[in-house]
Amino acid sequence: MERTVNIDIKATAGFVSDADLSRYESLAFKALDILEDGSGRGSDFLGWMDLPSKTDESIISNIESIVKDWRRDINLIVVTGIGGSYLGAKSAIDALSHSFRNNIGKDLPQIVFAGQNLSEEYHAELLDLMKERSVACVVVSKSGTTTEPAVAFRIIKSYIEETYGRAEAVRRVVAVTDESRGALKGLADKEGYRTFVIPDNVGGRFSVLTPVGLLPIALAGFDIRALINGAAGMEQICRERSSENPAIKYAAIRNALYSKGKKIELLVTYNPKLQYIAEWWKQLFGESEGKEGLGLFPASVNFTADLHSMGQYIQQGERTLIETVVSVKRSNRSLEIPLDEENSDGLNFLAGKSMDDCNKMAELGTKIAHYDGGVPNILIEIPSINEFNLGALYYFFEKACGVSAYILNVNPFDQPGVEEYKVNMFALLGKPGFESKANELKGRF
Amino acid sequence: MERTVNIDIKATAGFVSDADLSRYESLAFKALDILEDGSGRGSDFLGWMDLPSKTDESIISNIESIVKDWRRDINLIVVTGIGGSYLGAKSAIDALSHSFRNNIGKDLPQIVFAGQNLSEEYHAELLDLMKERSVACVVVSKSGTTTEPAVAFRIIKSYIEETYGRAEAVRRVVAVTDESRGALKGLADKEGYRTFVIPDNVGGRFSVLTPVGLLPIALAGFDIRALINGAAGMEQICRERSSENPAIKYAAIRNALYSKGKKIELLVTYNPKLQYIAEWWKQLFGESEGKEGLGLFPASVNFTADLHSMGQYIQQGERTLIETVVSVKRSNRSLEIPLDEENSDGLNFLAGKSMDDCNKMAELGTKIAHYDGGVPNILIEIPSINEFNLGALYYFFEKACGVSAYILNVNPFDQPGVEEYKVNMFALLGKPGFESKANELKGRF
Repeated sequence: MERTVNIDIKATAGFVSDADLSRYESLAFKALDILEDGSGRGSDFLGWMDLPSKTDESIISNIESIVKDWRRDINLIVVTGIGGSYLGAKSAIDALSHSFRNNIGKDLPQIVFAGQNLSEEYHAELLDLMKERSVACVVVSKSGTTTEPAVAFRIIKSYIEETYGRAEAVRRVVAVTDESRGALKGLADKEGYRTFVIPDNVGGRFSVLTPVGLLPIALAGFDIRALINGAAGMEQICRERSSENPAIKYAAIRNALYSKGKKIELLVTYNPKLQYIAEWWKQLFGESEGKEGLGLFPASVNFTADLHSMGQYIQQGERTLIETVVSVKRSNRSLEIPLDEENSDGLNFLAGKSMDDCNKMAELGTKIAHYDGGVPNILIEIPSINEFNLGALYYFFEKACGVSAYILNVNPFDQPGVEEYKVNMFALLGKPGFESKANELKGRF
Repeated sequence: MERTVNIDIKATAGFVSDADLSRYESLAFKALDILEDGSGRGSDFLGWMDLPSKTDESIISNIESIVKDWRRDINLIVVTGIGGSYLGAKSAIDALSHSFRNNIGKDLPQIVFAGQNLSEEYHAELLDLMKERSVACVVVSKSGTTTEPAVAFRIIKSYIEETYGRAEAVRRVVAVTDESRGALKGLADKEGYRTFVIPDNVGGRFSVLTPVGLLPIALAGFDIRALINGAAGMEQICRERSSENPAIKYAAIRNALYSKGKKIELLVTYNPKLQYIAEWWKQLFGESEGKEGLGLFPASVNFTADLHSMGQYIQQGERTLIETVVSVKRSNRSLEIPLDEENSDGLNFLAGKSMDDCNKMAELGTKIAHYDGGVPNILIEIPSINEFNLGALYYFFEKACGVSAYILNVNPFDQPGVEEYKVNMFALLGKPGFESKANELKGRF
C-alpha cells in the first residue's frame, strides 16, 4: 500500500554524518517515549495525540446536522477566530477548494474569516459583503476574550441580530469553545447557541482535528470522516519504534541540521493551494520551538513562483537554510501543454507533457541545484491533495513537532512569549487594571 | 506637508552605536553617489531611477485606451507573468482593491494571474473560470521564453482563439515585452497584438512603474497617473544629500544591524492588503542582495494574525531578527467597536474606539514588547493606502535597495543564481541541447 506520508532525506547527505543522524534518531526515540508516556513538560496538553482514534461519532453527526441546516439558506459563513482557531480550517479549506471557488459554482457557501486580524478596512469590507448575502457565523475561541475575535464577533453578532432578529440569530451562530468555562461559553448558554467543545488538553495549534477545524471544513463541503481516518492511520504509524516512523525521521534530521548551524527552515510547496498549510506549519513549529533563544526560524516559499523572487537568495545567499518540500505526487486535474506549430517560444519539447510533469521536473531540478549550492533538502511526499491525505499530514506534523521540541529540550506546548505585546496593548488602550503598565510605557517610542 | 514615506529608527537604539550608524550613513552616501553617477556594478540597469519623472504621456494614454476598450465587454483579465512580471501588479492591485472585490460590485473586471507557477490544478481551474467569462489576456515577458508564462500563454492563447476566433483574439491579447527582440515580440508583431515596451535598462524586480505594472494596475481600475506622481515625488526626495533621505536612512540602518549579527529581516504589515507588498519587497531585496554568501534573509509576517503564530518565535526564539514595519497612518474605512451591555468579553473599555485605534495600539505594544525582547524595529510610515502613496513606497524601496546592495558591496542588478535550477529542469525535461547535463543528473536523488 502506498504510504500517506513518505519522508526522503537522501538530499541531506554531506550535511550531517551518519553518526550524528543516528545520535539524533536515538534522541528522537527518547522524545517519543516521553510524549507517549506523558512524562515531559507540558504533558497536560497531549489530548491531540489520540484524537483521531477517539473522536466521538456524536461530534461528527452534530457537525453534519449543522451543515445540513445551513445548506438550506446560508451562502456566506463567517468563521471568527485567530491563530490555531483559524489556520487549521483556513489551510484545509484552501487546499481542498477549487482555486476560484467563490467565483464559479454557486452550490457551496462562501467561507470567509473574521477576527483573524484587527484591520478596520478588512472588517468594514466584510460587512459590505455580508449585506449582500445570507450570513451565518462560527465563532471559535476557548476563552471568548481574545481581542481580535471578540471585537469582530461583537460586530458580526450585532449585524446578524439586527438583520435577522434575535430568535433567528440563535440558529445562525454556532460557538466552538470551552466545555464549561469562559466568556463565550457563558454567552452561548445564555443566548442558546449550539456549541462544540475545544478539549482542555488540546492547545490551539494542535486543534485542527477538533471541532475548531472540523466544523468549518465540513461547512465548506469537505469529508471530515476521511480527514479523521487519514489522521487515525498516521496515529498508528507515528507510534512505531522504527527509524521509518516519519515523525522520528523528520524530527531527527531537522535537529541534526540545526546542530550543524542551519538556522532557517523553508517549507516549500509547488501548489499554491498549500500556502496556508505552510502558515499552519509555521505556527506549529514556531510557537512550539521558538523559545529560550532557540529554534529553527520557520519560513515558507511557494514554488515555482518564488523561485523567481527568493530563488536567488536560496541558491547563493547566507548558507543557513534547509528546504523541506511538501510534495504532492498526483495532480487532481490534468492539463496538457499544447503544440505550437510556429514554436516561437522554443518549448515544443514540452508539447504533450502535462503541466504537472513540468512542475515535477522543476521540483527535482531545483532540489539538485539548491543541494549543490549548499541547501539540504527534506522531502515529505503525499499521494494527492484530499481529505484523507491532509488528515495524515496534519497528524504527522503534530507528532513530529512534539518529538522535535523535546529533542530541543523545550516545552512544545506552552507559549510564554505571546502575552507581552498583549499586556502593552491593553495598557495603551486604557484597559482597567493596566494603569501602572500604561505609566511605564508613556513616552516610549 | 506630510511626507509620503517617513522612517523612524528610534527603536534600534542599543543595537547599533551612533558611531556605527554614522559610519553606515557615510557608506550609504557613497553608495548613493555610485548609483547616481552610474559608476557601480550593474549600471546598465539603472533605467528605473528616473522612470517616474520621464514616463511618456503616450504610454499612459495608450494604456488608458486599452482600459476603455476592454471595459466595454471584458470581465476577466488574465495577467500572464512571473517574478517581476507578476509581483508589482499583484501587490498594487491587492493593496488598492476591496477585500472582496471579486464577490461584490460587478462593475470592475476580475484580474487573475497565470503562468506565475506550474500548478496543473491552478491552471485547469483557471480555465474553468475562463469558460464562464469574457476573457482578455495581458502577457508579460521580456523574452517570451520563460517556461511558466510561456506554457500558460500557449494554453490561454489557444483558448482565446478557439473561443472568439483569431481576429477577435488580436483585440483580446496585449503583450508587454522587449522593444525589438525576443520570441514574444516576434509573435506579437506577427499576430498584430498591441504591445508595450519593457525598457532594456530596467530589470524585472524594478519594473513595477513600467507598463509591466502600470497596464494591469490601470486595467484593475486604479489611477496610474497618481501612482507615477507619488513615485516622482519620491524620486526627488531620494536624491537628497541628507540623512533624512529615507533611502539613506533605511539602507544605513539595515546594514548596520546586519553587521551586528542580525540575519533575518521581517517585513511586518498590519493590513492584510499589504501581504503582496511584502512579497514584492522579498524579491527586490532577496534577489538584489542574496549572493556571494551574503544578505539579510527577507521574510514577512502579517500582524496581528501572525502574532498568534510567529509571535512566540519573534519574542523569544533566536535573537537574529529585525522587524521592519510598513505602517499605514489612516484607515480608508471606519468601523467602531460596539458597546455590549452585558460586557461578557470584558472589552467594553474598547467600545466607541475604532478598530484601527486598536490595531495601532497592538502595533505600538508589539514594537515595545519585541524591542524589549531583543528585536530592533524600523518603522516605515505612509499616510494611507492609495495610488500616490504606493508609488512613493515602491520608489523608496527600489532606491533604498540599490543603496543597500552597494553598501554590502554586491551587484544589486544581477541574479547569477537563478539559472541553475532551470538548466537542471530543462535537462530533466529532455530539452534539445541539454543531453550531457541530463546524463550528469541521471540517478541523482
